[in-house]
Amino acid sequence: MLQLYFAAGSCSLASHIALLEAGLQFEPIRIDLLKKDQRSERYLSINPKGRVPTLMSAEGPITETPAILGYIATIAAPHSPISLSSAAFAAAQVHSFNSYLCSTVHIAHAHGMRGNRWADEASSIEDMKRKVPRAMTECFELIEGNFMKGEWVHGPAYSISDPYLFTVARWLEGDGVDPSNFPKVAAHRDRMLQRPAVQQALREVGEEVRLLAA
Amino acid sequence: MLQLYFAAGSCSLASHIALLEAGLQFEPIRIDLLKKDQRSERYLSINPKGRVPTLMSAEGPITETPAILGYIATIAAPHSPISLSSAAFAAAQVHSFNSYLCSTVHIAHAHGMRGNRWADEASSIEDMKRKVPRAMTECFELIEGNFMKGEWVHGPAYSISDPYLFTVARWLEGDGVDPSNFPKVAAHRDRMLQRPAVQQALREVGEEVRLLAA
Repeated sequence: MLQLYFAAGSCSLASHIALLEAGLQFEPIRIDLLKKDQRSERYLSINPKGRVPTLMSAEGPITETPAILGYIATIAAPHSPISLSSAAFAAAQVHSFNSYLCSTVHIAHAHGMRGNRWADEASSIEDMKRKVPRAMTECFELIEGNFMKGEWVHGPAYSISDPYLFTVARWLEGDGVDPSNFPKVAAHRDRMLQRPAVQQALREVGEEVRLLAA
Repeated sequence: MLQLYFAAGSCSLASHIALLEAGLQFEPIRIDLLKKDQRSERYLSINPKGRVPTLMSAEGPITETPAILGYIATIAAPHSPISLSSAAFAAAQVHSFNSYLCSTVHIAHAHGMRGNRWADEASSIEDMKRKVPRAMTECFELIEGNFMKGEWVHGPAYSISDPYLFTVARWLEGDGVDPSNFPKVAAHRDRMLQRPAVQQALREVGEEVRLLAA
């Protein structure tokens, strides 16, 4: 059976939701980042990067959220809502959006808590923290203005971009950004919360179900 | 015909090589980053992120290197050396490696020249610059020790991970890291330079062909 190594509050939530949407059996395994589980010898033998998530498949571990999401879409049960178009351009749009979340939006967010990856001085770390709201705002202005194509990220069809956007957009308040500045993204977040897979994933992770419209 | 918007010294080189390996007809269009071509109204109408590369297809623009590489592998001419396995796990390993290059290695590098994306003070920007060699070294220790599976990144078969690693590994000297610290990566770079597609891409971009072993 598949195993998902996840951490509360992390981007692993996207893979967690996608696995449920895909109708795949899996065992969620909690990694406590505060206890440094991700640096344990056992975990590093699975994922030498020491990050979450890792999806353990019968053939071995898969890391990096965009790759895990692509894998889930590929092996999903027939007729599952997580589907990847067989059309090359449409699939490329999904991968492009997910790559942007991974390499730009997640990175903008990470400068709030993980600045020591890229600088050493306390003043630099504080400087980075101060800039997070502006950097996240720029990212979400692009998403709101250019990338939201309809009810779901890419239009009428749900895709692996939706749980990923949902996961990253939940970081906005903690990053000092008011989600209501981005009405399409905020509505998407509330729409996602109506989905049983999203509610189940949040329960399993132990995260709050917060409706923005409430 | 496909058009690749590229910039010298940038990660667009990976897509450039992949297009040639794939046997696809395309027009390379130079973006001069110093002249801020990437912020021109015309370019922003194609790629509102204002970054390179962008691959313009008949159906519209595709952005983000991992997505462009995946698209190229999908539409490549039959029997081209750029092939993406139809096996889900093998394809996921390719996407995982490329996502790591994009979201961790490229980001470590970017703190040398683009620190103002994440901080404002001159002292922070200098601090970031100082840390680049250590951050890049950590990345390449992981790549060298854990991810290089054979002659090519994923083993005996060439893949879209190879031009991408080649592109990113060429940044090492500029980032203050001696490539000979990573013998597998250095040998891979020289092996890549033997490929006609790589030589042609470097000529078209106007970059130097430097053999490490020379």
